[in-house]
Amino acid sequence: MRAVDLIQAKRDGAELSEAEIRFLIDGYVSGAIPDYQMSAWAMAVYFRGMTAAETAALTLAMAESGDTVDLSAVRGVKVDKHSTGGVGDTTTLVLAPLVASAGVPVAKMSGRGLGHTGGTIDKLEAIPGFRVELTQDAFTAQVNALGVAVISQSGNITPADKLLYGLRDVTATVESIPLIASSIMSKKIAAGADAIVLDVKTGGGAFMKTIDDSIALARAMVAIGAEVGRRTVAVISGMDQPLGNSIGNALEVREALSVLRGEPGVSPDLIEVCLALGAHMLVLGGAADSYDAARAELREKLASGEALRKFAAFVSAQGGDSAVADEPSRLPAAARVVPVPAPRAGYVGAIRAEDLGTAAMWLGAGRATKEATIDLAVGIRMLKRIGDRVEAGEPLAELHVGDATGEAALAEVVRKASDAYAVQDAPPAKPPLIYAVVTQDGVERLA
Amino acid sequence: MRAVDLIQAKRDGAELSEAEIRFLIDGYVSGAIPDYQMSAWAMAVYFRGMTAAETAALTLAMAESGDTVDLSAVRGVKVDKHSTGGVGDTTTLVLAPLVASAGVPVAKMSGRGLGHTGGTIDKLEAIPGFRVELTQDAFTAQVNALGVAVISQSGNITPADKLLYGLRDVTATVESIPLIASSIMSKKIAAGADAIVLDVKTGGGAFMKTIDDSIALARAMVAIGAEVGRRTVAVISGMDQPLGNSIGNALEVREALSVLRGEPGVSPDLIEVCLALGAHMLVLGGAADSYDAARAELREKLASGEALRKFAAFVSAQGGDSAVADEPSRLPAAARVVPVPAPRAGYVGAIRAEDLGTAAMWLGAGRATKEATIDLAVGIRMLKRIGDRVEAGEPLAELHVGDATGEAALAEVVRKASDAYAVQDAPPAKPPLIYAVVTQDGVERLA
Repeated sequence: MRAVDLIQAKRDGAELSEAEIRFLIDGYVSGAIPDYQMSAWAMAVYFRGMTAAETAALTLAMAESGDTVDLSAVRGVKVDKHSTGGVGDTTTLVLAPLVASAGVPVAKMSGRGLGHTGGTIDKLEAIPGFRVELTQDAFTAQVNALGVAVISQSGNITPADKLLYGLRDVTATVESIPLIASSIMSKKIAAGADAIVLDVKTGGGAFMKTIDDSIALARAMVAIGAEVGRRTVAVISGMDQPLGNSIGNALEVREALSVLRGEPGVSPDLIEVCLALGAHMLVLGGAADSYDAARAELREKLASGEALRKFAAFVSAQGGDSAVADEPSRLPAAARVVPVPAPRAGYVGAIRAEDLGTAAMWLGAGRATKEATIDLAVGIRMLKRIGDRVEAGEPLAELHVGDATGEAALAEVVRKASDAYAVQDAPPAKPPLIYAVVTQDGVERLA
Repeated sequence: MRAVDLIQAKRDGAELSEAEIRFLIDGYVSGAIPDYQMSAWAMAVYFRGMTAAETAALTLAMAESGDTVDLSAVRGVKVDKHSTGGVGDTTTLVLAPLVASAGVPVAKMSGRGLGHTGGTIDKLEAIPGFRVELTQDAFTAQVNALGVAVISQSGNITPADKLLYGLRDVTATVESIPLIASSIMSKKIAAGADAIVLDVKTGGGAFMKTIDDSIALARAMVAIGAEVGRRTVAVISGMDQPLGNSIGNALEVREALSVLRGEPGVSPDLIEVCLALGAHMLVLGGAADSYDAARAELREKLASGEALRKFAAFVSAQGGDSAVADEPSRLPAAARVVPVPAPRAGYVGAIRAEDLGTAAMWLGAGRATKEATIDLAVGIRMLKRIGDRVEAGEPLAELHVGDATGEAALAEVVRKASDAYAVQDAPPAKPPLIYAVVTQDGVERLA
């Protein structure tokens, strides 16, 4: 088998066999196949696409290219959740204890933030004492005892995906649906998932800018799941504005706690998406017979305080200060709070989530490069969302600022955050929150 | 400017500017742009094509990527000729003295053979004493004095093309008409051509398998010529069988001498293609008013012996034994001649030129790798061509075999050469020799 022949076959529209795809991926990881052949192949895939069988074969080849997590010692159906990247997306902090409280085990590996997007591991580290690294035995024991554990990605998980993604990034081959879909799914499968619920973001702040592209990506991932025996459901949700109102690590933990405590009127979009994702997780995990029954169950777990108690137990089990569940003031807090005034009166018409994420990164909440250090206390709290009325000078958001940010830098962050908001005369139409749900049975359009 | 953005632009069907193409080529030659970006770009070009302006810009960027030959000291219009690769293609040995004898200067750089195709420089070296390297001054002085000089490619000519071709070869991006066209034209332009006559081979033994592809390639090269101010004419000729009857260096010199001596009935296909290419060279060089007048002039130069005398003078000027012109037996000859018998009686229906070229390479006439040494005396002389009647056991061809070929290897060559011939019951239709002529005015189909 020669790589050049496989590139040519793909170029000419042929379907590669599982063995051929594995030859490419294994050869690439071993160094036998050079970057310049993989990039030509990726460009051919960009133009020719891949069949469902090819995409599944690629996913498995990448999933098995490095270490894999064995969750067989965890009882029950392991349902993992993945979001295609977001700003102010605090769903994992809410969902992990919420779903666990309803009887579905959550054995989750999460990542750190990069650029304008946050990462669950950073957020958990905002809780004093929280340990994000556990041995494999401690991890499975905790899930079996408590129903939930969340740890940092460790080991050499999906090296093929890391290599290929880095290459695609510099060869204009990122925007290929089968390549994106297999990248995401390979990581979930390597992490030991039996079933997967995907939150595919769509809109201005998301990777997929149109609803059609988002649905196509969701379908590709659901198809992979079907091919490789992992039931998969994808929810298409809007990224027309950040999902929650907080961007920054301790701030997002606070918001998750507000949701888990059932505080009235708080973060309705975040709650809605958590209920939708969580209900699908319960159904896939066999803990509910229907989506509607699952939603009712989850609401009950929030109202009864069981989800909040599960959160406290989970934090305690991983060495964290579980008292934060009742006293969020124990979380790190920034030295000062600076308002972002509205430049004029009107209605908030649009919020560029990516720009707010970048502004928060500039404050130190996120990393410009993988090596950068972050300040867990800083970030942005949004006070206005799309459709809200504002007066001139009224705060659109507040910046939580640390000592490392000087006055000149702060002025730039204020400007960036202010520019992320578009204020207009007429009240805008409110953008949909959940656009569609994609399952093996097809696409259900909701907006 | 970033390479990834230019790859993306091409991927998305945009036209790159001259500056953008030069950035890619200059960056690639300098090492600033890595192989993996160029291969992704080449694959995008494979799918999206290039406009005439882009192809011309690429041609010039590659032509100017290294040394260029300055022929301004040579009087007259310098018309170069290029063949897209062939087996038994002895046209340069005939055309160089023939065209020079009709008053068009021939200042030609040629290459060596590789794989199943031969190279003019190797063939000239079969003439005892012939020097293929001259200083630039000696080269131009000889052309001005004699009208003809042929030297080996030297210096760092079109390094961008060498790099890019090597990359395309291993990334399944060879078969792109704008990339092929710019590769060929860049070398001719770097070699100092004012005008160019192209022999585009078509058919089983050629790079371009169909007449439509061959015409498309010819049109692309003629369009480049128009864009860069080098009048270009392309003749599409058949490679359904080797053009001449000889494959191997000294054997091809012998055949060229037979043609130049005007021996009756010898090599009619080779003569016809030489007359067609030569006549276009005379017209482009301003030495004839019309194609028909040019052909008549060339026939006269053959009949009068002027072409042969020019050959002798040319050989002598470059240090070779000019007596070979009248005594071809002075050329190196193989130790023994082995027939390739026909497996059955019938008619020769097809001859795979590439397989005969490979068989000759196995005898030592050509190089499997660039570093291989060759035997100038060995090769194959075809005794039968398409349409000829053969009896069972009658020789189809004769192998000229050197001492380095053992009996087992020889048996393999006999089999390979025999298999290259298809013998059938019914007389076949004779394949056309010249299919079309492509000029700036359009395509003239001749078959």
